[in-house]
Amino acid sequence: MSSPPRPDPVQPADAEARALARKLLGEARFCALAVLEPGTGHPFVSRIALGCDAEGLPLSLVSGLSLHTRALRADPACCLLVGEPGPKGDPLTHPRLSLRARAMFVPQDGSEHATLRANWLTQNPKATVYADLPDFAFVRFHPVSAALNGGFARAFALTAADLAP
Amino acid sequence: MSSPPRPDPVQPADAEARALARKLLGEARFCALAVLEPGTGHPFVSRIALGCDAEGLPLSLVSGLSLHTRALRADPACCLLVGEPGPKGDPLTHPRLSLRARAMFVPQDGSEHATLRANWLTQNPKATVYADLPDFAFVRFHPVSAALNGGFARAFALTAADLAP
Repeated sequence: MSSPPRPDPVQPADAEARALARKLLGEARFCALAVLEPGTGHPFVSRIALGCDAEGLPLSLVSGLSLHTRALRADPACCLLVGEPGPKGDPLTHPRLSLRARAMFVPQDGSEHATLRANWLTQNPKATVYADLPDFAFVRFHPVSAALNGGFARAFALTAADLAP
Repeated sequence: MSSPPRPDPVQPADAEARALARKLLGEARFCALAVLEPGTGHPFVSRIALGCDAEGLPLSLVSGLSLHTRALRADPACCLLVGEPGPKGDPLTHPRLSLRARAMFVPQDGSEHATLRANWLTQNPKATVYADLPDFAFVRFHPVSAALNGGFARAFALTAADLAP
């Protein structure tokens, strides 16, 4: 193939890209979470519930029995994919955000946990049956940077500041 | 918390789990793909189109400009998440499969590429506009093992043999 390589299509974020990224993150009720598997360092991806705190930063309630929780306790580096395609149309043209983050577990005996628990159960009433099991914990995802794909040839790089609510 | 830990809920796959895993993989038109970022080794997850070959094994058509393609060329270890929740109901009760895999790129000058290209364009006619750009390539995902989550407290571990079509 003698064609010249195409230029890198990733652009710095503009106001529209920042707004779209925050919208995708704020509306997500679940996400794909990528972690490193303890022991092997192999990438692993699973689905978790997703919510946000009063500042709009993402968090989840996770089980200590799950592989992703054990992975995050061993290495907090992770990545979240949000922006779900609808049942119709080309799923690859639907905008999505890959958010690089660091996971920080919330201590279970503090006031922060009580606040997050109350808010979470309001939005996820079915979680009442397991939220207080001792292996469940809230985990916050502190944004590091992100890649926004707004559809074919519409790619943006975002900083943590771009994602601040 | 003095409660005893709950037992590991992951069971070996039975016939029903194997059938569900193959169904989720066979029906997926896209997936979340977790890779290791070149340089940092940080986990990264993005969305890709997904199809399967005549044997039912998963594959995709990917752009060399994308981060996931550069990552897979540097380290073929990856993981695919398939099984998309519908617009209604609790997304966390919807079954999904985390497939650990090794990515193998298909040479662009062979008969295998021609066969995959013809099948892919039949199922994804819009891909005609970019399938022949020189940086695009077909990549096969060879199953290593998988984790099936059939909903709360229904988790199964699958081997590559469990996933064979």
